[in-house]
Amino acid sequence: MNDEYFMQQALKEARLAFEEDEVPIGAVVVMGGRVIARGHNQTERLNDSTAHAEIIALTSAFNHLGSKYLPEAALYVTVEPCLMCAGALYWSKIGRVVFGAEDEKNGYRRGIGDVPGPWPFHPRTVLMGGVLSEDCAVLMREFFRSKR
Amino acid sequence: MNDEYFMQQALKEARLAFEEDEVPIGAVVVMGGRVIARGHNQTERLNDSTAHAEIIALTSAFNHLGSKYLPEAALYVTVEPCLMCAGALYWSKIGRVVFGAEDEKNGYRRGIGDVPGPWPFHPRTVLMGGVLSEDCAVLMREFFRSKR
Repeated sequence: MNDEYFMQQALKEARLAFEEDEVPIGAVVVMGGRVIARGHNQTERLNDSTAHAEIIALTSAFNHLGSKYLPEAALYVTVEPCLMCAGALYWSKIGRVVFGAEDEKNGYRRGIGDVPGPWPFHPRTVLMGGVLSEDCAVLMREFFRSKR
Repeated sequence: MNDEYFMQQALKEARLAFEEDEVPIGAVVVMGGRVIARGHNQTERLNDSTAHAEIIALTSAFNHLGSKYLPEAALYVTVEPCLMCAGALYWSKIGRVVFGAEDEKNGYRRGIGDVPGPWPFHPRTVLMGGVLSEDCAVLMREFFRSKR
């Protein structure tokens, strides 16, 4: 099992969101080689503009482990996290963050561009983008095209 | 009723957090001159490092109103929001954010300092700091002194 495998799991979540007419972003939290938590965007269903895939997956992981920190875990998410989600990942002290497609409009670099160093992630978090990015981006494009 | 009145309400929440041995930060959401939601830090109780006062108050306000946006509301919080909470407030499109004490270590400017413009808040959000800041700061100092 590798990064592509777990991003496929996150893509499954993103497709669930698409079917529910939610912005199609999905996330999984992985620890010890297995998925311990899943989440997809539910801002419409929950009437909560902060109910992003990453937040739902993180909360589920905290509950599952009974721990408020996730240094041994990795989060896979289909689209670059926004600033709120990057901030949540910071607090979780998660070991790795792997994302698929970049998000120029809403990604964590929104408004300020690249900042040197680990900001806004935790200094001990390893960040990687671009895994299955085209698959992840296609879902988003299809969704927003259907909304026009 | 003015900003000091509503910050006192947020301080009540912060004192509840203190009594529960949580970092003493409290928040209220105000709309139409009354408090519609409250929250205080619950990171220990919930084993969730993202369970900040602002997040809990926002989620409660979304539920109360059945709306995922809060343009007519104001959030009062005893301490400068962190980047995660600032990001959550961005998504909520809240009308005003009023905070008490500054937080050099964990406030939203952590790591990068002041950025021109409304970042990271929504362009339509009015931001104000320094309301009852000493009362808000004293609680934090007492809490962390008791931990040393």
